[in-house]
Amino acid sequence: MNTFGHLFRITTWGESHGGAVGVVVDGCPPQIALDISAIQFELNRRRPGQSYLTTPRREGDAVEILSGLFEGKTLGTPISMLVWNKNARPSDYKHLKDVYRPSHADFTYQQKYGIRNWQGGGRASARETIGRVAAGAIAKQILRETSGTETLAYVKQIHTLAAEVDTNKVTLEQIEASPVRCPDPSVSPEMAERIDRARRDRDSLGGVIESVARNVPVGLGEPVFDKLKADLAKAMMSLPATMGFQIGSGFDGTTMTGAEHNDAFYVEKESVGGNCNPDSSLRRNSPISDVHSGRIRTRTNNSGGTQGGISNGENIVFQVAFKPTATIGKAQQTVDIHGNEVALEATGRHDPCVLVRAPAIVEAMAALVLADHLLRQHAKLKM
Amino acid sequence: MNTFGHLFRITTWGESHGGAVGVVVDGCPPQIALDISAIQFELNRRRPGQSYLTTPRREGDAVEILSGLFEGKTLGTPISMLVWNKNARPSDYKHLKDVYRPSHADFTYQQKYGIRNWQGGGRASARETIGRVAAGAIAKQILRETSGTETLAYVKQIHTLAAEVDTNKVTLEQIEASPVRCPDPSVSPEMAERIDRARRDRDSLGGVIESVARNVPVGLGEPVFDKLKADLAKAMMSLPATMGFQIGSGFDGTTMTGAEHNDAFYVEKESVGGNCNPDSSLRRNSPISDVHSGRIRTRTNNSGGTQGGISNGENIVFQVAFKPTATIGKAQQTVDIHGNEVALEATGRHDPCVLVRAPAIVEAMAALVLADHLLRQHAKLKM
Amino acid sequence: MNTFGHLFRITTWGESHGGAVGVVVDGCPPQIALDISAIQFELNRRRPGQSYLTTPRREGDAVEILSGLFEGKTLGTPISMLVWNKNARPSDYKHLKDVYRPSHADFTYQQKYGIRNWQGGGRASARETIGRVAAGAIAKQILRETSGTETLAYVKQIHTLAAEVDTNKVTLEQIEASPVRCPDPSVSPEMAERIDRARRDRDSLGGVIESVARNVPVGLGEPVFDKLKADLAKAMMSLPATMGFQIGSGFDGTTMTGAEHNDAFYVEKESVGGNCNPDSSLRRNSPISDVHSGRIRTRTNNSGGTQGGISNGENIVFQVAFKPTATIGKAQQTVDIHGNEVALEATGRHDPCVLVRAPAIVEAMAALVLADHLLRQHAKLKM
Amino acid sequence: MNTFGHLFRITTWGESHGGAVGVVVDGCPPQIALDISAIQFELNRRRPGQSYLTTPRREGDAVEILSGLFEGKTLGTPISMLVWNKNARPSDYKHLKDVYRPSHADFTYQQKYGIRNWQGGGRASARETIGRVAAGAIAKQILRETSGTETLAYVKQIHTLAAEVDTNKVTLEQIEASPVRCPDPSVSPEMAERIDRARRDRDSLGGVIESVARNVPVGLGEPVFDKLKADLAKAMMSLPATMGFQIGSGFDGTTMTGAEHNDAFYVEKESVGGNCNPDSSLRRNSPISDVHSGRIRTRTNNSGGTQGGISNGENIVFQVAFKPTATIGKAQQTVDIHGNEVALEATGRHDPCVLVRAPAIVEAMAALVLADHLLRQHAKLKM
Repeated sequence: MNTFGHLFRITTWGESHGGAVGVVVDGCPPQIALDISAIQFELNRRRPGQSYLTTPRREGDAVEILSGLFEGKTLGTPISMLVWNKNARPSDYKHLKDVYRPSHADFTYQQKYGIRNWQGGGRASARETIGRVAAGAIAKQILRETSGTETLAYVKQIHTLAAEVDTNKVTLEQIEASPVRCPDPSVSPEMAERIDRARRDRDSLGGVIESVARNVPVGLGEPVFDKLKADLAKAMMSLPATMGFQIGSGFDGTTMTGAEHNDAFYVEKESVGGNCNPDSSLRRNSPISDVHSGRIRTRTNNSGGTQGGISNGENIVFQVAFKPTATIGKAQQTVDIHGNEVALEATGRHDPCVLVRAPAIVEAMAALVLADHLLRQHAKLKM
Repeated sequence: MNTFGHLFRITTWGESHGGAVGVVVDGCPPQIALDISAIQFELNRRRPGQSYLTTPRREGDAVEILSGLFEGKTLGTPISMLVWNKNARPSDYKHLKDVYRPSHADFTYQQKYGIRNWQGGGRASARETIGRVAAGAIAKQILRETSGTETLAYVKQIHTLAAEVDTNKVTLEQIEASPVRCPDPSVSPEMAERIDRARRDRDSLGGVIESVARNVPVGLGEPVFDKLKADLAKAMMSLPATMGFQIGSGFDGTTMTGAEHNDAFYVEKESVGGNCNPDSSLRRNSPISDVHSGRIRTRTNNSGGTQGGISNGENIVFQVAFKPTATIGKAQQTVDIHGNEVALEATGRHDPCVLVRAPAIVEAMAALVLADHLLRQHAKLKM
Repeated sequence: MNTFGHLFRITTWGESHGGAVGVVVDGCPPQIALDISAIQFELNRRRPGQSYLTTPRREGDAVEILSGLFEGKTLGTPISMLVWNKNARPSDYKHLKDVYRPSHADFTYQQKYGIRNWQGGGRASARETIGRVAAGAIAKQILRETSGTETLAYVKQIHTLAAEVDTNKVTLEQIEASPVRCPDPSVSPEMAERIDRARRDRDSLGGVIESVARNVPVGLGEPVFDKLKADLAKAMMSLPATMGFQIGSGFDGTTMTGAEHNDAFYVEKESVGGNCNPDSSLRRNSPISDVHSGRIRTRTNNSGGTQGGISNGENIVFQVAFKPTATIGKAQQTVDIHGNEVALEATGRHDPCVLVRAPAIVEAMAALVLADHLLRQHAKLKM
Repeated sequence: MNTFGHLFRITTWGESHGGAVGVVVDGCPPQIALDISAIQFELNRRRPGQSYLTTPRREGDAVEILSGLFEGKTLGTPISMLVWNKNARPSDYKHLKDVYRPSHADFTYQQKYGIRNWQGGGRASARETIGRVAAGAIAKQILRETSGTETLAYVKQIHTLAAEVDTNKVTLEQIEASPVRCPDPSVSPEMAERIDRARRDRDSLGGVIESVARNVPVGLGEPVFDKLKADLAKAMMSLPATMGFQIGSGFDGTTMTGAEHNDAFYVEKESVGGNCNPDSSLRRNSPISDVHSGRIRTRTNNSGGTQGGISNGENIVFQVAFKPTATIGKAQQTVDIHGNEVALEATGRHDPCVLVRAPAIVEAMAALVLADHLLRQHAKLKM
């Protein structure tokens, strides 16, 4: 279904070239002074047309909030948000009406439903993520105000170019300062250049987004199926173009031995503040992690911030692989709906590399997962 | 929650050293002549004590079916299955009562719940997967009888040793013929040796399981959140010790360009039978994939069998990273529940490498996801 | 949560005096030529201001469909529909800002959320049912086209005035011909008069809605918790102002003996067509109900069309009790949010009797439940 | 599906004559010293064979707890409980193998699934409620310890005999002191006599169970679909043999006017303790209901303890109609699976009136609904 989350739950709707796209956020706690500009800020980060590196479509993507607010505060009732599809040019896609674009969802949607909106990808378009990003901005606000938790995502790799980023220190400002949203200035310009070259070649590039969540309360995530890493994996692999997810040591960790990989516990003696907001009720309900005058930490973080599927208070660090954009300008062989083999030369506007716009989306999904588990943990702790 | 699936739904329960572990399977179609020996076969594959490469604990793991069957056939009502915990030796774990084992769930469970069963991992034990494997065996039978779909998994990599496997041809027999469940005979013996050395070193190893599903009907998976790849990722990342999931080209695909990565469509002219059982009702309802006298295929399969999150009829191929077993015999530094830093030397029985037993579990989870989406697609097609 | 249904699922949103109210319909089968005028027709039946018997607020209630349609047909993706709140006059409610209206949700919302939209009931307003009615119209179309199933509801009782209605024969035309939507002409005018008198007395009336679903396929409903009668009960009791639900013989049946109450089976020999569309796939999959040349029926229908929570092919007949409208013009004693006891004299516009507008809502909810179970049964039958 | 509840969630399984019946309780808070004798006490109340008024089958119904407990305390993991089917005599039912018993689920199960367990009703048997009662006992303990909430149910009416019961004062002891579980001594003996006469007549009787929940925290229940009254209605109508549900004034309230029906608010000045446990965290989070030195109450309780679907702190009072037991000894006309009209004379053991055993079941379902909403409210309040 088009719904995600158990207690903090979103339902997205909309095709890329229908009337609008939107989201209903259900389960948002009441009495929050909603920061609407923060929602718009995230939508702007996701929006096409930000620079020559992204698709030249200019979608205003101004959010409208239709319910759930009263005098600026959340009511605890569903928050309905939408963005109108203003700059739709269905004619751009007319030549695609009967064609199955390679590595797109045209063929599978047609097979599954017997019908598809061939205008720009319909429901499979990345435009669907607008609702996720808007909802994620609310989740971020909840995390920030409840436990001081922050989710960040950035470009870790474009094509063969990899960045070095310190997950403890990276900031939103560093990410946004880079036109490719890679906070490593030693490689960011080359990445931009490589993307631009792909654009000129009518080709496309993929890469890796890395995400870190800091100040995560201990205890989020549920055995067995709703492990934090499992819900994060589902969230990320539900995004268009994602091909892989790894947390902590990930695939590289498979070449270590247990003695090398295990994260040794120790007591951080002079912890001031700890890894979550000391005023949060979650903190107050987890006194056991504070022993003597210290806090239990791990010396390494190969676990990526979860053990047994539950957050251990260390940074949650994961990576998401995005394939190169399926839409390319180069000529390709394909098949039409009548079974004829045809040549395809795309003319629609598209991103040569979706990674540049992906950080806002990955952050949003991470925040949605964490906020949902935060509420679930609230329900647990109080008995 | 401890429930997985939307229409074919399982609920697992049980701690490793409580009375029993089990599963309730809900949504199983009626009138299936349940192959109970197949269930036991899968449990035996998962069972410890199969060889010197696995933990020497001997758990009979004989399944009992308590409901949902009548005269050998499924009633359509919940199928309750359990396996008694016979060989539990809680005293083996007594020295762990107050200790947080590194990279185990001891610390996080204690933090989350304020209580934990310290006998052998409790709910976080891999023994929980018994219920998944038993339920997965039923899912496999449904897939086999409905669409001829087969799920296989095998060791692709142990530590730094990687295998070459042809996903189109690999068989269960080849997998089971190898003591490490790696169907590549050129590397399987060395893998066994490496595991045995780790055992003698009181250390442990990780690795990668690869899984392929063949004869998957076109059209399984749902936009947006319940994409097939997303549900597979969640299923795999909900397993103990998993650190990564990738489908198709995965992380490696990020270094390709779109022109290299896109899977070109073509029409396979002389297809006899196609990629799913021609007698299945799903097949009958998907006439569009048959054009003229052929079937629409892709020349490459970088997509890993799904596009837009929906199966395209090609093999579904994915990989799962497992970290090295957290339980090792070597001495480690850690912390106890009182905040004292202590040395830990594990004496409990354990696997030096869980990969050997993992294929049955990965196959089961893949089958559960596919069976669930098969039923969901049934609900869709008939209008 | 604000979501209802398992496979045919709706999520409603919106306050009575926020920007809009709406619904997202998820799980609608693809390729249906959606009858938008039928949606508007149902909204018009629900709308206030239809006659002197309903509230004089004139809400256009024109539905806008923002997604899920392509060239007039459903895509299988979420259908987002909304109705703007045009005629909102928040000032009408200003005097209610601090007052807890008796038998309204003011007090409980304030307690639950610590905040409430005091303008016209907010989320607790009957205006929320707009989304249900719009979604229900789609469910009706599915039922009609799939199995010829029809849901009707009408006023069975207003205050102490009860109607006689033949559930086998009553028609939509008869219902709509009555200004109070009571198809019994012998009592309908007196009901209208009684409502008008209540209006002039600044008082209000309650009553009973009866609903019948005809041509319901055999086999809808699930043991154990999702019995058809259970889901219908939840659907009806989720409506504002409902106080009771009964099916078949209901509370009156408790004074019968088993021998009197049991519905004897017999074989209807000359059944032509049966009780569901002979072309439907459900019908084709239920051959057992056709024995010899007949159809298994019951001579009486005290069961109300379900046995064991599953439809048996007879008419589903149930009744819903609605309390008298809580909003009245008469002076009442109450308490304000500061704990002062105050007198209240309502001046807002309101219905003296919601029953007149309730049939469209009850029908919609019945259709939503049936359509959901129809899809669930589709998923079951095909194995 | 066979699952009920959102955060406090149960999954029941088992046929009446299969190996066992049971339940998995998911979402139970950790660290509760589970009162197992209280679970067995409730099962004993539900059990057949308690007196000449119930079926003479003697089912020990001893509960076994297989998981979720450690050293007597809940772990927060699933609690698996089962009761073995010991006294099954399938031969008692052999003559029913091919017969559709009137007003039983035989016909509908056979139609829905194409197969049924004809031994004693299979999944449709009242024996399925064992799991509900066992789980409900845990819910009761949570409610008692968290908010002092108590759920009681008793026979309000048998056939035409109605009792007078003060919902504020009735006690468990009074209920259990009556062999028919009617706490009104002026009518209880006559009820027993009437049931015994029905038994001798080989007939059966129905009736009404009334239930009251006292000390319910303000704020339980959710708009829109998960109103407390809606979830209670679903819970009750999911029980075998139920035909109606009403809350507060119910169907009788439809003959009142709004001025008569509305529950006037007032401030109870000298409230000591209030209507929920003053130590509970819910209480602490609902300061607004305490104004000055008093508590906001209603003078009447026609609303039955909920307004807008949310508890208002008054007693929750509802009634459930049970039809006369479908199994009777008297000869009946019916149809067999081949379509032959046949005479049926039941010889199996059965209850002449299920009402006597129903209170434990109704209480359990009420407790499950309240505990679920209690946890849901916990999740809400803490932001």
